[in-house]
Amino acid sequence: MNAAGDLDAVFRHIDDHADEIVSDLQELCRQPSVSTVHTGIEEMAVLVRRRLERAGLEAEAHPTEGHPIVTGRLAGAGAKTLLFYNHYDVQPPEPIGEWASPPFEARIVDGHVIARGATDNKGNIMSRLAAFEAFLAVRGELPCSIKYIIEGEEEIGSTSLLPFIEANKDLLAADGCIWEDTFREDVPVLSLGNKGLCYLELTCRTANVDFHSSQAQIYENAAWRLTWALASMKGADEKVLVEGFYDDVAPLTEKEEELVRRMKPYDTEARKKKFELRRIALDLSDEELPRRHLTNPSFNIAGLDAGYTGEGVKTIVSGRARAKLDCRLVVDQDPEKIRGCVRRHLDQHGFEDIEVELLFQSLPAKSDPESDVVKACQAASRRACGEEAVINPFGTGSTPTWMIIRHLGIPLVGTGVGFITARTHSANENLKIDHLIEGAKYMAAICEAFGGS
Amino acid sequence: MNAAGDLDAVFRHIDDHADEIVSDLQELCRQPSVSTVHTGIEEMAVLVRRRLERAGLEAEAHPTEGHPIVTGRLAGAGAKTLLFYNHYDVQPPEPIGEWASPPFEARIVDGHVIARGATDNKGNIMSRLAAFEAFLAVRGELPCSIKYIIEGEEEIGSTSLLPFIEANKDLLAADGCIWEDTFREDVPVLSLGNKGLCYLELTCRTANVDFHSSQAQIYENAAWRLTWALASMKGADEKVLVEGFYDDVAPLTEKEEELVRRMKPYDTEARKKKFELRRIALDLSDEELPRRHLTNPSFNIAGLDAGYTGEGVKTIVSGRARAKLDCRLVVDQDPEKIRGCVRRHLDQHGFEDIEVELLFQSLPAKSDPESDVVKACQAASRRACGEEAVINPFGTGSTPTWMIIRHLGIPLVGTGVGFITARTHSANENLKIDHLIEGAKYMAAICEAFGGS
Repeated sequence: MNAAGDLDAVFRHIDDHADEIVSDLQELCRQPSVSTVHTGIEEMAVLVRRRLERAGLEAEAHPTEGHPIVTGRLAGAGAKTLLFYNHYDVQPPEPIGEWASPPFEARIVDGHVIARGATDNKGNIMSRLAAFEAFLAVRGELPCSIKYIIEGEEEIGSTSLLPFIEANKDLLAADGCIWEDTFREDVPVLSLGNKGLCYLELTCRTANVDFHSSQAQIYENAAWRLTWALASMKGADEKVLVEGFYDDVAPLTEKEEELVRRMKPYDTEARKKKFELRRIALDLSDEELPRRHLTNPSFNIAGLDAGYTGEGVKTIVSGRARAKLDCRLVVDQDPEKIRGCVRRHLDQHGFEDIEVELLFQSLPAKSDPESDVVKACQAASRRACGEEAVINPFGTGSTPTWMIIRHLGIPLVGTGVGFITARTHSANENLKIDHLIEGAKYMAAICEAFGGS
Repeated sequence: MNAAGDLDAVFRHIDDHADEIVSDLQELCRQPSVSTVHTGIEEMAVLVRRRLERAGLEAEAHPTEGHPIVTGRLAGAGAKTLLFYNHYDVQPPEPIGEWASPPFEARIVDGHVIARGATDNKGNIMSRLAAFEAFLAVRGELPCSIKYIIEGEEEIGSTSLLPFIEANKDLLAADGCIWEDTFREDVPVLSLGNKGLCYLELTCRTANVDFHSSQAQIYENAAWRLTWALASMKGADEKVLVEGFYDDVAPLTEKEEELVRRMKPYDTEARKKKFELRRIALDLSDEELPRRHLTNPSFNIAGLDAGYTGEGVKTIVSGRARAKLDCRLVVDQDPEKIRGCVRRHLDQHGFEDIEVELLFQSLPAKSDPESDVVKACQAASRRACGEEAVINPFGTGSTPTWMIIRHLGIPLVGTGVGFITARTHSANENLKIDHLIEGAKYMAAICEAFGGS
């Protein structure tokens, strides 16, 4: 039997069952599952478990402290096991009025399924199930064993995920993981990790009231103190001046250097025009931007708030000022350690009174770009999409891929059916039917390549 | 005739007619006159004009672009003319629920008139009219000629006042002016001027959107740019670094130096405790504070606003940041010139893109502490209150006294019946009846001393 030919048969099966795949996606989308308001969560978990069973997997819905986590498994040919990750919860559909068709109706408009969750993340689930089903129908088995984990809290912080992974290492043990989608313009993107996040809130209190500003000469202004403190932490050259901030930034491997060099340059002119930018940070060139974006940690003010923030005139001395600092971390920076560096910096610069609270943290992680799961995705991209995938060696967001990479100790690739036109998290979220079908073939090709590796 | 004895008779007349004075104040307070919502303004102007006529003045209500301005005049003994200033409009009474009795009922509770406007400014009006009426009843004439100007827009910016003064210089010509009250703890305060105000809004725009903070490495953050710009303008030693800011600060005269030295030290310990202060600005001593408060211009951040200012976590790069700068100016600083200095500073420090808008301006002014009107108030304080008045040579707020001082070219004293317990602008505004009666005598004594000077 010719393996390539055999995969053609799997692809054909997917093409021949395109209508069913679409109508199955519509069924998943018609069940609301808004995690932030806990709407339809239990129903969705049941629906997903049953759908996994229908696809031939041994499935289970596990209660957690939060929303149920659904797992599935199916033994396949060969010795290798591939773990798939998705989530069944969705963002709230609001503002409803902006949708061209109701968000949970999953209407097909001009070759697209329009629904909350169409891409993020139910379309991704469906592309994977369609691939599994095609293998079983055509070949009677998958080219590798598969495991599946589908959580229900991705949109609200994945709180139950890490304890579940910790408690179920055997159940989830695998040789590699396919994470949910990244967003592509054309060819698949392979994202091999995630940035960490250290989200700090700095609060300066100089008084328990705001004073009339006719007393500005005699009272300390919290807004000024916070301004001075912030300015001491980063200069206009974007260098972070907090001692120790860069200490744990790991140097890039040779392979990572090569991948970063190969990243497509960013089109700064188009961005400048679209977003009416004064300039790109540091006036970096199109070629320099991917490196800066992927390999640098950030030290960002996400919010500033003091005194009177309405329109017009109010004359007060702020007794309280607040800044939110959002630091995207790279391997091997640690959020707790960064908090400590900021605390020490403030103490050393005369700002002992400014409080620092760690509101949210998430760890950075990266995967070996030469691992089998990456190679399988590269081969699958060539096979199913006819093009080389783009490898993003570090990721830009702060997703919980680190929970898999660090706690299961396996390499991971984020990839899927998400296109940048999908309007995820916005009104009129959609998935083009062509992308769903191509995505199913891409997932089938990944299993095939991983099983043969 | 013994002048002191004669004034005793005037004081006795005030005492004997205390009930009428109080009931007249109640009548003024029962007419709502909330300028910001234009409630009862015309009715109040008519009531005030009639009340001036009843007191024996020749009175007129002048239409303006805004609310009517009421003037009055009455020839008296001697060559001198004293101009009185008040306003008939009041602050809104909200929140109504916090009042112990309805704000326009003017109920008497425990020796206090409780009403919106009881002190600010109808009690002050009544203290003056009661003084005039006592002179006329006892003596048949006032010891000096008087003029009166009562506006209806003080609580909303006195927009019509300057054009009216400019167009009516002859009508208002006088040798000195008694402005509305300052607020005293015990003895009368004589406030000889006002600070100027230069209220700037600085806006930094780096993009027409906020970006997801996973892109913080490549986009400029408006909050950071504004932070760096602000930090370049004032350091932690509170020195303003904007070139030219201090250029027009006039040196103190010998007399002003003496008055500042004589100011009562501020009680920093009490303030620290009450307001939970980290410290007083620059850790100044009780003795240093009055000088700093009265003679220094300020450069205050009244508001800061960028990115996400709610509770918890939101991860964005701010495309827009805004600061409100509230500079209290001393003679002879000029708001337009200060705006120019800030603009130049930003340009010279690489912040050409930050916009500067002058939202409000008001000029600084001061009066000669050795003028006859000041001496009359000092004599009156000794005579009516039995104590030396406190002279504040510069004022701390940015009232429109400069319109009189600069445009009529006469010295001015702000003084009256206002005590710091009067809760002006708050619920349960009040005037203690004893303070009203003492205030009427104090006003009579001012007229007497000014007429004899």
